[in-house]
Amino acid sequence: MEFWYTEQHTPDVRLSIRVDRQLYSGQSEFQRIDVFESPEFGRFLTLDGYMMLTEKDEFIYHEMIAHVPMCVRPDAENILVIGGGDGGTVRELLRYSSVRHIDLVEIDEQVVDICKKYLPFTAAGLDDPRVSLHYEDGLRFVRKPVSAYDLIIVDSTDPFGPGEGLFTKEFYGNCFKALKDDGIMVNQHESPFYEQDAYAMQRMHRRIVTSFSLSRVYQVHIPTYPSGHWLFGFASKKYHPVEGVDFARWKALGIKTRYYNTQLHAASFALPNYVEEMLEDVES
Amino acid sequence: MEFWYTEQHTPDVRLSIRVDRQLYSGQSEFQRIDVFESPEFGRFLTLDGYMMLTEKDEFIYHEMIAHVPMCVRPDAENILVIGGGDGGTVRELLRYSSVRHIDLVEIDEQVVDICKKYLPFTAAGLDDPRVSLHYEDGLRFVRKPVSAYDLIIVDSTDPFGPGEGLFTKEFYGNCFKALKDDGIMVNQHESPFYEQDAYAMQRMHRRIVTSFSLSRVYQVHIPTYPSGHWLFGFASKKYHPVEGVDFARWKALGIKTRYYNTQLHAASFALPNYVEEMLEDVES
Repeated sequence: MEFWYTEQHTPDVRLSIRVDRQLYSGQSEFQRIDVFESPEFGRFLTLDGYMMLTEKDEFIYHEMIAHVPMCVRPDAENILVIGGGDGGTVRELLRYSSVRHIDLVEIDEQVVDICKKYLPFTAAGLDDPRVSLHYEDGLRFVRKPVSAYDLIIVDSTDPFGPGEGLFTKEFYGNCFKALKDDGIMVNQHESPFYEQDAYAMQRMHRRIVTSFSLSRVYQVHIPTYPSGHWLFGFASKKYHPVEGVDFARWKALGIKTRYYNTQLHAASFALPNYVEEMLEDVES
Repeated sequence: MEFWYTEQHTPDVRLSIRVDRQLYSGQSEFQRIDVFESPEFGRFLTLDGYMMLTEKDEFIYHEMIAHVPMCVRPDAENILVIGGGDGGTVRELLRYSSVRHIDLVEIDEQVVDICKKYLPFTAAGLDDPRVSLHYEDGLRFVRKPVSAYDLIIVDSTDPFGPGEGLFTKEFYGNCFKALKDDGIMVNQHESPFYEQDAYAMQRMHRRIVTSFSLSRVYQVHIPTYPSGHWLFGFASKKYHPVEGVDFARWKALGIKTRYYNTQLHAASFALPNYVEEMLEDVES
């Protein structure tokens, strides 16, 4: 018997992963949730059929979304994570003793329950006393706080389905308001390679630039996402993501990582010309 | 009707690309050669079923294998390209007026003929008077020259089939001998992500380190190669790939590129920890 999970990366490109067994399949109020066990990637989570994370390469995504801003602001105390019900981003943030409180806003409680049950490698930190879980729409949640957070991480799904509101101008404007005067927002920023992803990426960048005067994009290799070429956004009220950063201070923390390091931190903001051009197209 | 090309990236992972039509299929003395036309990637070439290049993303591979060493040595005059019968690497090298002569050593004449016919976007430069084509085994070719080349580019297939000899200790030793005292060798260096590729990558690095005291690895995003996370090797008798490089001089040449730029050149040598560890494992 052959048993394969297949994701359409575009209508004309498919990635298929051999599956040992399906560990969970269910429909929440918001989306279909599946967990699979596979020989190549270990366990993996999909939402509405789209790959969210695999045991083999989730460290890349979670290290790069968390340690880049934390290296710029290793004194961040109060953090808001929007999306990220799998817990991977929170797991990385909890490695900093400076972090006093994390609000995790996940619209779908069932995602958290399933991840706690099947993906303990990412979900372990969700029960930490420093973490408050809010089962709410992120778009609504950020309307209230003012100058409350040192860091906001938008660990969203793609810009359709339940995560749609996390890609609007209103949302980014509210994130700006919810941040302190020296606050940073980092977000999952889609991919430049395939046309639909690149379009979403450009639209998002245009909206972020409207709210944040300093807005940069950095790149990573995520083999299980479409094209493997993925981007994160770094938007800030004050701090540049590389210039003036005290990299030695981060190194002194002694946090062991498998993908992230301070040289790669700086290097990941150097983008291919074609990506730079896509960003510049929407900056003016 | 559905018509798909599928490549096994591992026994448990497949990438599939929708095909409009197969433009060519034939068996040479050395390998099976196929050319396809696809909606997502345009035309693409496979050898023994393995993806070699696509019209959509070949610029990434060819720019990064050619411009990195040429930026370090923009005065390179005499160059040896081993493999690369598609012509993409030669195309990029010919953009430098300093380049006086390129020996292209391709074992399979039929690859050159097919690329000239079906892939003119890479093969255009192969008829340039500065290029000499040699239909020979690269392993044998490099036994003869001594202190002859400023730059050798090993634009090989994978380390099995007709390209196997280009991954041996003898081959790298002969490349060292064939280079001038300030010569550089750049090579296709496989991928760190999937186990088999990573094994090939480590074995290759161990052998190169034996011949070249200065040996570094740099990374790129190539969406149509397994995992999308691909490496090149930079080995040298004298020049460091980043320190002391006159980046302004390269910029002054005015060569327009879509992926390569001088910031990315430097940045691409910053590697994830897990890749650094794999390389260090075989360096001692």
